[in-house]
Amino acid sequence: MNNAKTTPVKISDVVLRDGHQSLIATRMRTEDMLPICAKLDAIGFHALEVWGGATFDACVRFLKEDPWERLTSLREALPNTPLQMLLRGQNLLGYRHYADDVVERFVARAADNGVDIFRVFDALNDLRNLETAMKAVKASGKHAQGTICYTVSPVHTLETYLEQARRLVDMGADSIAIKDMAGLLTPYATSELVAGLVEAVEVPVHLHAHATAGLASLCQLKAVEAGCRHIDTCNSAFANGTSHPSTEAMVAAFQGTPYDTGLDLVALKEIGDYFREVRKKYAAFESEYTREDVSVQIWQVPGGMMSNLANQMKEQNALGRIMDVFDEIPRVRADLGYPPLVTPTSQIVGTQAAMNVLTGERYKSITNEVKRYLLGGYGQPPAAVDEEVRRKAIGSEPVDEGRPADQLQPEMARLETEIGELAESEEDVLTFAMFPDLGRDFLKGRRDGTLVPEAIPAPSSGGGERPVSEG
Amino acid sequence: MNNAKTTPVKISDVVLRDGHQSLIATRMRTEDMLPICAKLDAIGFHALEVWGGATFDACVRFLKEDPWERLTSLREALPNTPLQMLLRGQNLLGYRHYADDVVERFVARAADNGVDIFRVFDALNDLRNLETAMKAVKASGKHAQGTICYTVSPVHTLETYLEQARRLVDMGADSIAIKDMAGLLTPYATSELVAGLVEAVEVPVHLHAHATAGLASLCQLKAVEAGCRHIDTCNSAFANGTSHPSTEAMVAAFQGTPYDTGLDLVALKEIGDYFREVRKKYAAFESEYTREDVSVQIWQVPGGMMSNLANQMKEQNALGRIMDVFDEIPRVRADLGYPPLVTPTSQIVGTQAAMNVLTGERYKSITNEVKRYLLGGYGQPPAAVDEEVRRKAIGSEPVDEGRPADQLQPEMARLETEIGELAESEEDVLTFAMFPDLGRDFLKGRRDGTLVPEAIPAPSSGGGERPVSEG
Ligand SMILES: [Co+2]
Ligand SMILES: [Co+2]
Repeated sequence: MNNAKTTPVKISDVVLRDGHQSLIATRMRTEDMLPICAKLDAIGFHALEVWGGATFDACVRFLKEDPWERLTSLREALPNTPLQMLLRGQNLLGYRHYADDVVERFVARAADNGVDIFRVFDALNDLRNLETAMKAVKASGKHAQGTICYTVSPVHTLETYLEQARRLVDMGADSIAIKDMAGLLTPYATSELVAGLVEAVEVPVHLHAHATAGLASLCQLKAVEAGCRHIDTCNSAFANGTSHPSTEAMVAAFQGTPYDTGLDLVALKEIGDYFREVRKKYAAFESEYTREDVSVQIWQVPGGMMSNLANQMKEQNALGRIMDVFDEIPRVRADLGYPPLVTPTSQIVGTQAAMNVLTGERYKSITNEVKRYLLGGYGQPPAAVDEEVRRKAIGSEPVDEGRPADQLQPEMARLETEIGELAESEEDVLTFAMFPDLGRDFLKGRRDGTLVPEAIPAPSSGGGERPVSEG
Repeated sequence: MNNAKTTPVKISDVVLRDGHQSLIATRMRTEDMLPICAKLDAIGFHALEVWGGATFDACVRFLKEDPWERLTSLREALPNTPLQMLLRGQNLLGYRHYADDVVERFVARAADNGVDIFRVFDALNDLRNLETAMKAVKASGKHAQGTICYTVSPVHTLETYLEQARRLVDMGADSIAIKDMAGLLTPYATSELVAGLVEAVEVPVHLHAHATAGLASLCQLKAVEAGCRHIDTCNSAFANGTSHPSTEAMVAAFQGTPYDTGLDLVALKEIGDYFREVRKKYAAFESEYTREDVSVQIWQVPGGMMSNLANQMKEQNALGRIMDVFDEIPRVRADLGYPPLVTPTSQIVGTQAAMNVLTGERYKSITNEVKRYLLGGYGQPPAAVDEEVRRKAIGSEPVDEGRPADQLQPEMARLETEIGELAESEEDVLTFAMFPDLGRDFLKGRRDGTLVPEAIPAPSSGGGERPVSEG
């Protein structure tokens, strides 16, 4: 139990990862990060989140930067600040489950290149998908942060979250993060959840809450009052909307109280002035879907998912039926045992809901992803799935109830062979592992000296492609 | 004492007044308000703030709308919602002190044309400047809200604010508003202030807090927990930054709690969708100075004042000395007995501070406004002024310590004569009273049918003139 009711709040700033991922499609380039690192490093943050999430993908896909090089240069430029990454458990930073040997090597290389704190999560909160990564972090001597993906459903009670936290601590978690990727938390729900967690576990509790509905700063305040001492904020230049509460505001909020962060507002403001200029360069990646929007508090559907669905329905000339899809989403989610809606489950649920509406008959057509999900391919759903839907989808095929990665043979050796001399390091092999085609092209381009970052579009062109993950 | 710890929070939405005043230089036109009034009227707000502040000025100066007509058409379009206005005490909506007869007639006509709630304030918190207006509101049978302009200084203690509230109630105030025009309040300062006020007075306490530093929603949450049940918010389309916390966010924050506002989020979201479209039309009036900025929490200087000073110093080729001016402001403010910084005191203090820096010698040159201030022309400063500065400014001239308006002879008759047949109603005379030249031109233009609203500039042109008041 944490009795530190009057100790300072510690701030992890996410401007170098989640801030630009949330607001400008993960496009900030390393060249725009390095000039401000000395000032960032002098602030005294608990941590800076700098890697993982969609940044790896964006580096390889759009920026033609080696993500490992970004990590080592940030490590060098930020010698005094712990660096944090976001890791999708057994999915690492890719879009499938990897064999354990890949997970182990990935974590080892990330630790070696500079990551101090690994925030590890699984979209279904299936802790078996976190096991190998957590063990690997511990083996590397780094900080393993176990994550609770927050969602709202009849089966997600306070007790299920507390039990998950206890199990994460049993797995070696050095801290627990509440990850509210959609902005579902309300201040008083946060209060209850945090008070429970602080009571239930000895390790620090972190709050990562997106400001999508305009509630995250309120949630952080109530979290702090309930005993949380670690909040994720983002420099004001990349704060609010689908990003996070601003660092400056939260620092000011606690000034002169027992929670005082002790951070220097003038220095933070200077950093903000820098990043506001940087943000202008990326104006083409701004989107109206990143602004504050209360919808998630009405329909429990994350903003990114709503805009994706709107686009899908538009393409089918069926935008007029979008409200039917919003109504169908909770039903599909119930059928699938109430998965939290985050990559990849948000796509799985959303696409099936749209299909159920468009075909005019529920589950007349069923996506391969839903089939894979019902076969146990993503792990264990939070609750029992609907038996009839399962039968329609997979008939009498056996459901795999084991840890998904137990089905996978070691694959590092194969990956090394496949990529051959294009890989100059184990890091390169792991890049290839994350993105087979894209990674190979990247390594080839690097060898041939033909890598060209995407041009930054003119602001009027309405934004470029966005990597396919949230967080 | 207010024991209503578990009663619903009531929302006053300011989108039709302070929202667009704060974010698009008070430019929203009546034609963009009326189409959404039916939906606004159905929400069940405690009130809609629709008039006063800078709207009167903007109507006459830029939009060439009759402000009285705006009021009557909003009254007609919002039959079920109390309408609120912001009134600068003895200054009404103009920029000087008016004689009592003008104040009385103005309030009577405003009440008659549709204002239900009058929020009355004075920049110096000199209650003698509120007396006549408060009495006139009571005489008209309407709701008189007495206002505390919040500031931070060695002489502004909790007890001074509580005493002010008690005196406002003695003057007949039906409720008390805390007006944090600059965004100075922090959540825990709010908590203490509101708890004190709720204990000190029987009438409801309202919180009007600008989100300039990103703290207002936090302040409102703490205010509500401390017993406040009336908060000012703004539809999300015109919320945040130098405006107010978003209505939707605050409604969502309290949903399902004893504070639940009971307002319909889906309906509020539809209103937001409407106003987001409207805001696009006024893109030219957007300014980078309206975004969230923590500076006021560092230097205690309101955002609008900082940008004005930056412009002044730039014109003098002295932008490099702006930090000296920021350092000088608190000294000038101390010399002048710690006035809150709001129109007109923000200009009085800021200009003198800039002069003190530019001339290289403090009070070598002294503005006429500072002289008038030291002669007692604006009312009584919150604390004693510096005697040496006073001597330098006004020598041995006698200081008027009476109520400023006591010096003024009745002036309605003179105004009526002066404007003659250009005025078709008492409202017209009052329009002329507010703005002698501008008002006459407006009435003449109306008679001749030559009124032309300013063209809305193209967005790239970087904004038009702004009316000279905050609030
Ligand atoms: Co995130
Ligand atoms: Co205001």
